[in-house]
Amino acid sequence: MAARDSDPTGLHRVLDDAVVLPQAARRLDTRPELWPDEVRIRVEKLNLDAASYRQLERKHTAGDGSVDHDGVRAEVLEIVGARGKMQNPETGSGGMLVGTVEEVGPESPLGLAVGDRVATLVSLTLTPLVIEDGLADWDGRGEQVPCDGYAVLFGRSIAAVLPDDLPTDLSLSVMDVCGAPALTARVVGEYVARSSRGVSVAVVGGGGKSGSLSLAAARHAGAGRTIGVVPHEQEAALLRATGLADEVVVADARNPIGLRDAVTAAGGPADVTVVCVDVPGCEGGAILATADRGTVIFFSMATSFSAAALGAEGLAADVTMLVGNGYVPGHAGYALELLRDDAGVRGLFEGRLTHEAGT
Amino acid sequence: MAARDSDPTGLHRVLDDAVVLPQAARRLDTRPELWPDEVRIRVEKLNLDAASYRQLERKHTAGDGSVDHDGVRAEVLEIVGARGKMQNPETGSGGMLVGTVEEVGPESPLGLAVGDRVATLVSLTLTPLVIEDGLADWDGRGEQVPCDGYAVLFGRSIAAVLPDDLPTDLSLSVMDVCGAPALTARVVGEYVARSSRGVSVAVVGGGGKSGSLSLAAARHAGAGRTIGVVPHEQEAALLRATGLADEVVVADARNPIGLRDAVTAAGGPADVTVVCVDVPGCEGGAILATADRGTVIFFSMATSFSAAALGAEGLAADVTMLVGNGYVPGHAGYALELLRDDAGVRGLFEGRLTHEAGT
Repeated sequence: MAARDSDPTGLHRVLDDAVVLPQAARRLDTRPELWPDEVRIRVEKLNLDAASYRQLERKHTAGDGSVDHDGVRAEVLEIVGARGKMQNPETGSGGMLVGTVEEVGPESPLGLAVGDRVATLVSLTLTPLVIEDGLADWDGRGEQVPCDGYAVLFGRSIAAVLPDDLPTDLSLSVMDVCGAPALTARVVGEYVARSSRGVSVAVVGGGGKSGSLSLAAARHAGAGRTIGVVPHEQEAALLRATGLADEVVVADARNPIGLRDAVTAAGGPADVTVVCVDVPGCEGGAILATADRGTVIFFSMATSFSAAALGAEGLAADVTMLVGNGYVPGHAGYALELLRDDAGVRGLFEGRLTHEAGT
Repeated sequence: MAARDSDPTGLHRVLDDAVVLPQAARRLDTRPELWPDEVRIRVEKLNLDAASYRQLERKHTAGDGSVDHDGVRAEVLEIVGARGKMQNPETGSGGMLVGTVEEVGPESPLGLAVGDRVATLVSLTLTPLVIEDGLADWDGRGEQVPCDGYAVLFGRSIAAVLPDDLPTDLSLSVMDVCGAPALTARVVGEYVARSSRGVSVAVVGGGGKSGSLSLAAARHAGAGRTIGVVPHEQEAALLRATGLADEVVVADARNPIGLRDAVTAAGGPADVTVVCVDVPGCEGGAILATADRGTVIFFSMATSFSAAALGAEGLAADVTMLVGNGYVPGHAGYALELLRDDAGVRGLFEGRLTHEAGT
C-alpha cells in the first residue's frame, strides 16, 4: 500500500519537501492504514503540554481578562487539522496522549497488543493524530482534553501500558517525568560501583515531581547522602516530612554562590547534581555545587547549552555535564515502582493531584 | 587592603548589586592590586571572539559598504572602559588574551611565575581588563588586537604557558579548541577500557580545528575505527590526505537521515559521536548516528539543549549526551602534543593560518 518504505523514525510520514524528522516537520501523513512496523491507538485523552496550553489561553484572552475557551478549542482543532499532529507553533511543544491499542503492525517492535490501555511517552509533536469528534466533550478549559480519534506510533516510539493498581492520573503524572529517576539511578549507580566512600547526590528542585523521584532513585541506586534543594521553607517542610532526603536545604538555584554554599554546608559538594527546576540561570550554581570529576544532569528545559559549556570552562570546573535524555529503557516501570515502594513519593504526587483538582 | 575576601570564582570583583558570577556581571572591579589568590598579566594582544568582531564590523558599516574601523576601535575601548572586561553586549562573547605574568599573589593555585608568557584559556567575558594605550597600535581591522594594559586572573582561572617550539599563532589556534580533544580522549578511553571489540568514533566536522584534533585524540585513546564527516568533497580530500580518519564521508549534518546513513555505511553507528560543526540542527542526526548506549559529545555552541533532550526522547534513543565542557585538566598541553606528534593535524592548522593570513 505504501509508496515508500517505513523508517523507524517515522520519516515516511513526513509530508514536507525537506528531509526532516517528524518533530521538525510542518505536516504529517495521518492515513489510518499502518506501515508494517507501526501501531494505531484509539485516543481517549490528550494531555497538552502546560506551556502550550497557557500560550493558547493567553492568546484567547480578551482585554477585560475573559477567556474565549471556544476559541482555544477551535485553535487546537485547527492545529491538528493543518499539521496532522498537536504541536503548538508558538511554543513548539505538544504533550502526550492516553488511549487503547487498536491495531499492531506485524513488524512492530513495541511489544503492544490490541486492547492494551497505554500512554504515549513520545511527544505529540511527532505523533500523527486525527481528531474525529470535533473535541465535542472538551470545554476548552485545562490541559486534559477528552478526545475521540486515532494516533500512530512508529517503530522507535515509546508507549507504556497503564498499570491496573494505580489511578490513571497518578500513573500519567509519574510517567510524565519518568526519564529523570531512571537516568539518575544509572549515573549514581556508576559512581557507587567505582567509589569506596559514600556517594553524595544533590537534587535541585527536590520537592517537585521529577526531583522527588530522582531523590528516591538516588537512594535506591546506593547514594550515601542525598541532599534536596528547595526554593522556600514551605516546600522544605513538605520534603522533610517525606524522609526522601538526608538533608533539605533552602536556596535560590539562580544564585550560584548561594547554591554552592548551601550544598557544601549540607555535606557537599555533590558527586552528582541533578537539576530539576524549570527556571533559567541555574547552570553556574549547579556546576559549583558539584565536586571535581562529578556529574551534573540537567533535566530542566530552561537549561542553556552555552551557559553550561562556557560556565564550566569559565570556572575551570572538571565536571561531566549531561543533557537529561528523557528516554532510558524501562523508565516508566522503574518510576512507578519507586512510587509504589515509597510512601513519601506517593504522598507528594497524590497531594499535587488533589491540589490541582481543587484549583 | 580588600574590603571583602576573595572568592576563587572572582565574585569579589563583581560590582553589580545582584550576586552574579563575573561572566554574568555588568561591571567588574579592575583595580591592579591583587587579592592573595590572583595573578596579574601584562597584556600584549587580545584575540576577539570571531562572532563578536563580525558584529562590531557590521554595526560600523555604512550604507555604501565601507567600514568605519576607527568606530570599531572606539567601541572596543568603550566596552572595556564601561564594563571592566571585553564582553560584546550584543553577542555576549569575548575572546582570549596573550600576555606576560606581572605579579603572582602568594595564594594563587595556578602555578604561574612572573615572566611566564601565557594565553588565558578562560573567556575575556569574565576577565578584569584595563587597556592603557588607547589601542594605538590597532587599526580596528581583524580579531587580533595589539594592546598594552593589564588583566587579572582568579583562583579558578586557567592560563597556559606558551611553548617555545611553536609559533605563537599556531599555539593559540590549538589552545582555542583544546577542550574538545581532551574530553574526546577521556570518553573514548572509557569505552575502550570496558569494550572487548573495537570502539568506533565519528567526528562531525572532522576537517575543522576541533574536529581534526578530536580525530587524532580518538585514535590516540585507542579507537578501533575513526570516521570523519565533512560537508563537501573538497574538505573530504583535505582530510583524507592527512590520514587522520579511517573513513571520510560527505554528509550534511543537518539532515538526520543522511548523517545516520553516511555514518552507518562507514562502519557505524558510532560508539562515540563528536559534534564539532557550528551550525544549528545537528542534534537529531548525531543521535541517530550513535549506537545504543553510545555517547554524543556536543562541542558546537549552536547546539540546542531542548532539541537534543526532546530529540533523543522522541527517537527512543538510549544515548548519553554530553555538554562539551571546554575545561579538562591538562587540555592545552595534550592538544599541543597531538599537534606535534601528527603531521596531518599540524598541516591542517598551518594551512588554515596561512589561508587566514592571505585573506
